Amino acid sequence: MGEDPKRIGDLLSDAANIADDDGCAGEAIGGRRRGDRRSPERRSEVAGEAVGGRLRDLRSLLEGGMEHINSPFRGIAYDFRGRLLCYKQDWITGISSGIGILAPTTYIFFASALPVIAFGEQLNRDTDGSLSTVETLVSTAICGLIHSILGGQPLLVLGVAEPTVIMYTYMYSFAKGRKDLGQELFLAWAGWVCTWTAMFLFLLAIFNACVIINRFTRIAGETFGMLIVVLFIQEAVKGLVSEFEVPKNEDPNKEKYQYQWIYMNGLLAIVFSFGLLYTALKSRKARSWWCGTGRLRSFIADYGVPLMVVVWTALSFSVPSKIPSGIPRRLFSPLLWESESAYHWTVIRDMGRVSPAYIMAAIIPALMISGLYFFDHSVASQLAQQKEFNLKNPSAYHYDILLLGFMTLLCGLLGLPPSNGVLPQSPMHTKSLAFIRRKLIESAKESIKSKASNSEIYHKMQTVFIEIDSSPITTTIVKELKDLHEAVMKVENEKENMNSKFDPEEHIDAYLPVRVNEQRVSNLLQSVLLAASVCAMPIIKLIPTSVLWGYFAYMAIDSLPGNQFWERILLLFIPSRRRYKVLEKVHASFIESVPFRSIVIFTIIQVVYFLVCYGMTWIPVAGILFPVPFFVLISIRQHILPRLFQLNHLKELDAAEYEEVMGSPTRAPSFNLREVRSAQGGSNEGDVVSICDDEILDELTTNRGELKVRNLSFREDRRTQQIYHDDCIQSE
Amino acid sequence: MGEDPKRIGDLLSDAANIADDDGCAGEAIGGRRRGDRRSPERRSEVAGEAVGGRLRDLRSLLEGGMEHINSPFRGIAYDFRGRLLCYKQDWITGISSGIGILAPTTYIFFASALPVIAFGEQLNRDTDGSLSTVETLVSTAICGLIHSILGGQPLLVLGVAEPTVIMYTYMYSFAKGRKDLGQELFLAWAGWVCTWTAMFLFLLAIFNACVIINRFTRIAGETFGMLIVVLFIQEAVKGLVSEFEVPKNEDPNKEKYQYQWIYMNGLLAIVFSFGLLYTALKSRKARSWWCGTGRLRSFIADYGVPLMVVVWTALSFSVPSKIPSGIPRRLFSPLLWESESAYHWTVIRDMGRVSPAYIMAAIIPALMISGLYFFDHSVASQLAQQKEFNLKNPSAYHYDILLLGFMTLLCGLLGLPPSNGVLPQSPMHTKSLAFIRRKLIESAKESIKSKASNSEIYHKMQTVFIEIDSSPITTTIVKELKDLHEAVMKVENEKENMNSKFDPEEHIDAYLPVRVNEQRVSNLLQSVLLAASVCAMPIIKLIPTSVLWGYFAYMAIDSLPGNQFWERILLLFIPSRRRYKVLEKVHASFIESVPFRSIVIFTIIQVVYFLVCYGMTWIPVAGILFPVPFFVLISIRQHILPRLFQLNHLKELDAAEYEEVMGSPTRAPSFNLREVRSAQGGSNEGDVVSICDDEILDELTTNRGELKVRNLSFREDRRTQQIYHDDCIQSE
Repeated sequence: MGEDPKRIGDLLSDAANIADDDGCAGEAIGGRRRGDRRSPERRSEVAGEAVGGRLRDLRSLLEGGMEHINSPFRGIAYDFRGRLLCYKQDWITGISSGIGILAPTTYIFFASALPVIAFGEQLNRDTDGSLSTVETLVSTAICGLIHSILGGQPLLVLGVAEPTVIMYTYMYSFAKGRKDLGQELFLAWAGWVCTWTAMFLFLLAIFNACVIINRFTRIAGETFGMLIVVLFIQEAVKGLVSEFEVPKNEDPNKEKYQYQWIYMNGLLAIVFSFGLLYTALKSRKARSWWCGTGRLRSFIADYGVPLMVVVWTALSFSVPSKIPSGIPRRLFSPLLWESESAYHWTVIRDMGRVSPAYIMAAIIPALMISGLYFFDHSVASQLAQQKEFNLKNPSAYHYDILLLGFMTLLCGLLGLPPSNGVLPQSPMHTKSLAFIRRKLIESAKESIKSKASNSEIYHKMQTVFIEIDSSPITTTIVKELKDLHEAVMKVENEKENMNSKFDPEEHIDAYLPVRVNEQRVSNLLQSVLLAASVCAMPIIKLIPTSVLWGYFAYMAIDSLPGNQFWERILLLFIPSRRRYKVLEKVHASFIESVPFRSIVIFTIIQVVYFLVCYGMTWIPVAGILFPVPFFVLISIRQHILPRLFQLNHLKELDAAEYEEVMGSPTRAPSFNLREVRSAQGGSNEGDVVSICDDEILDELTTNRGELKVRNLSFREDRRTQQIYHDDCIQSE
Repeated sequence: MGEDPKRIGDLLSDAANIADDDGCAGEAIGGRRRGDRRSPERRSEVAGEAVGGRLRDLRSLLEGGMEHINSPFRGIAYDFRGRLLCYKQDWITGISSGIGILAPTTYIFFASALPVIAFGEQLNRDTDGSLSTVETLVSTAICGLIHSILGGQPLLVLGVAEPTVIMYTYMYSFAKGRKDLGQELFLAWAGWVCTWTAMFLFLLAIFNACVIINRFTRIAGETFGMLIVVLFIQEAVKGLVSEFEVPKNEDPNKEKYQYQWIYMNGLLAIVFSFGLLYTALKSRKARSWWCGTGRLRSFIADYGVPLMVVVWTALSFSVPSKIPSGIPRRLFSPLLWESESAYHWTVIRDMGRVSPAYIMAAIIPALMISGLYFFDHSVASQLAQQKEFNLKNPSAYHYDILLLGFMTLLCGLLGLPPSNGVLPQSPMHTKSLAFIRRKLIESAKESIKSKASNSEIYHKMQTVFIEIDSSPITTTIVKELKDLHEAVMKVENEKENMNSKFDPEEHIDAYLPVRVNEQRVSNLLQSVLLAASVCAMPIIKLIPTSVLWGYFAYMAIDSLPGNQFWERILLLFIPSRRRYKVLEKVHASFIESVPFRSIVIFTIIQVVYFLVCYGMTWIPVAGILFPVPFFVLISIRQHILPRLFQLNHLKELDAAEYEEVMGSPTRAPSFNLREVRSAQGGSNEGDVVSICDDEILDELTTNRGELKVRNLSFREDRRTQQIYHDDCIQSE
């Protein structure tokens, strides 16, 4: 007991790390540890979930312990069996959804296609045309088709992503400089890189490496996300500047490369890129506009960005005919059916021509890529299957990494850039398939109107619940009903003391807020659309490059809100006197629970680390090692940061969940909205205020698709937390 | 008693109109009528103010009754005497303010100068160079100097405004088409128009026409404001389009008028005008930014727009030197000391050459201009002297109209476009001189900390109040102290029943929120600066015309928030299911107190009327009569609208004051901000949340400078209103 408090902290931290490794047990402890600020109901739910009868949790249990290295194939086999049980249902549910499935399909198609096109153009510039939009689209389509049919997690969306593009750029600049590789053998060498990558991915899958995904805490993911943001902005600026220059490998004597036309091309690029950026950002927020019908707003919010690409592309044709053709510059890409594309079939043959030294050298980029893919794919899967979505089907981390290995190999042999699980499209996909079970709430409301007792309300809700849930009554639903029953009855018991009224929305929302239409059809169809869009290349080629630079900037800016690293950076610039502004609004919970000094130190450390990572990308060839600092960061987070910060503060700052607290407006509201409405025109049934489901989901998720956990009563639970900590110290 | 309810309504309306005419008595009744939704304290304050000892109110009393036609010069004489009493003090206060006066001076100088420059460029284009920026600047400077020294209301800011520009444009297009006038005699004829205008203004001043300013209700002002907005946007669009064309009267064979350079000029214009528009709108809101110190945010908010003009002008010089000079196009204006400007001295002589028929024809535009000036000048004066500013010095509507007549005559004879009182600069001027008496609140807070009784608090506050108010104790202060005393003691008495705690901020804010540094120096200095900027024309000429088009769009968009006509138009596009969004936020009170159907009908009538007015401006020569519909509207408001709407609804929709109600957020705040703060780090004195005065003032005023009256408890007072209306009907 006479031990140094720091030492106790370290012990605690180690215990927590072991607990995290222990999968489900860790989740239970972690849940209790993290959940201590939640309402008692929520806490019991988390604990309940951890020990409950869910398949997903069972899987975690199985993985528990340290034997994951010793039992190869165990994770894959388990994932495979788990998925097999619901494989048929995946198709039946999808097909029986009918036309309704087309909305999420087109939504996710556009969300996938645009970045893939943009990355294709980026690759085209950076690899001197070795790879271009057609390759990125084909890779995304092939991998998407395979994954949607054979994948273990059909909600996961695949695509060629920024890490791939960066790695391929480094690989190209390496290959280009070697006499015995050059542009000619670049794809063949990349084929070797993919082969090694596939190998490493197989090993990771076989030896159950995915059990460590709990170690991928917020800090690594968000620092990496910030790097992508900066690289996007860099790409946008570089692209815009290049519009003022004669492209390399072009004849500067052509009419369109005369000074005045080059400058005009640059000015048009400024207009188009900023135009796209502004309109895309505005349309993205359409769902919360005041004006317009719900359908119109939803349409603009869902399809506004591709729509704006179309609008600005159309506007780019309003340039008068007196201006030479080629201004503004448009996408350049050979078509799939042109002879230039045929060389992809010769990549396998060329792989034999790569000298053994380079084959061995390919291990280094392969290590980086497999690390990045393992990280990215797992995090994307994780976010697509957050527990707040109440998914019924199990996850399949191990199996999907194995499949990713096969796909990477295939892409490598075909001379295509490989695809992996993408953010934010994967959680966007899940979100677009989610619906809120309004009927349940309404039924409960009706019962309350007729002054039913709480047990009566529960029985009524149970009926509706079973009725609307088309799937057979599984243990999951039984458990959920049990939780709900407990909650309802608990309120009943407390009623006598507190004379409180049962609010169905509050309780049901906490228990059964969303259901997701889990199936394979939407993913399959969107992959088919992507494959079809390869044939639409002549149309895609009409997009001005400047619109894509605007789109890069849009992707960067759009991903910032909800990134806690970014929010903490902003916090540094808010003077202490203005901090009440943050507290007034809904805000991340750490702002209140962690002392400001700790937030500042943590953020500054992260900023410095980020700058180092960013600096690495500028190193000519060694830049290929840029993912290393992120892998190191995971270890730093586990072993060094706990020495610098209090354990509970670190848990808050680097929480697995995005936890928020309601703000308190300084002005007290003087009347209740419902009363106003009834005062205005009686409680007209047709005039009920209804916020559409999507809007609620929008409010509950970050732009990256992460669900936010809301704590309504922060202070109240803080006391609980305090008590818990006291307990903790005493028990030590 | 058996009469038609409609008839009773009309009678009530007539009674109200007469009451309005009756000046102070009207204000008292109007105050009671309009104030019935306010808290009891506030109501008593309004009534108290009306019968109180204030000089301004006394003046109104004097004007009361219908004898204003029968007693010429009465208003002028009264205004003159009233001002004489504080004339010396105006200078002493100003000079003793020291350097502090420079901040509002430069602020209002930039706010005045930019529109005057923009209008000058507009006039330059519309009058083929007969008038330009130098003339508008000189007119504004001369009138500003005269008004700041001799004016009755030194808070009023003068300038060449949009109505003048429109009228001069019509006058020019009339004169240009006549052989015996032409461009040569245009200014001489305009001199005659000004002479007639001056005459009419003299008559209006002599016969105390200003007593009818109460009839200028919101509907006329806001419809006119909307017309200006549309004309500004029209000007911006026309200007931007013209950048793609060869200017008239220019040689199209010059290099800079070659196709590619013209098109480039147009593209640059798009970049500069949208750039200015976006950055100006953003910087305008700097005060409420979260980041940055208070001083920086205030600076950006106050000087951001002129700063952005400078920034974009500087950027326009970053255009490469390979582009021919003259791209982008810049302001064109002869300099004051160039021979071209000398013709202004010959305008008086030329006036003799105008044929008598045209001299008589000048009466028509003169009638329009005098009507517009009378309206504009009075409304600007009214808004610069809103009673919530707690001004101590009297108003001088009659006298200032007389002075305006003289200034118009002078401008006419010098061939300058005349100036009149401008919006929103006039209320902005007052606002920039206002300060919130924080010391008083702090003193009260201290007393509360030391558990003083309310009467002790009052005495403490009284001491501080007298101490900080440098002026001798006049009846005004005595009355204010009495009001405050009553309020404090009332709370004391109620305390026993309600056990409520006295909140100094709430009570003092209601009684003594703002003080204005009333003086003449800031107005004089800003006029001197304007005069100096005439010499800076070579620098002003560097501004690209496209920046001015962006500035026109900025002026239009910036004036929309707070315009209730605009807010009602938006309301039409909000589906009923989304209307709760409006109610959640702070909103104009009519949204709750008037049935939605009445709002819609009223708004549609206003939109149609507005479209008629806008249509008139397109009629080639008869367009000169465009102000007529606005004069007619005042009569329509008095005689026709009361037949279509319930009197109380009409009063709400067309309220003299901008009344607002706090919104009620749907989510209940779960904790109090202060508690959070104290929980976070103890009540650290240095860490006190302080919202700077300007930010409070910003929140309390519309962009037009109108003060918003806040009702905290709408529903509660609604009951009172209901009772009052019942009383009203019964007493009828």
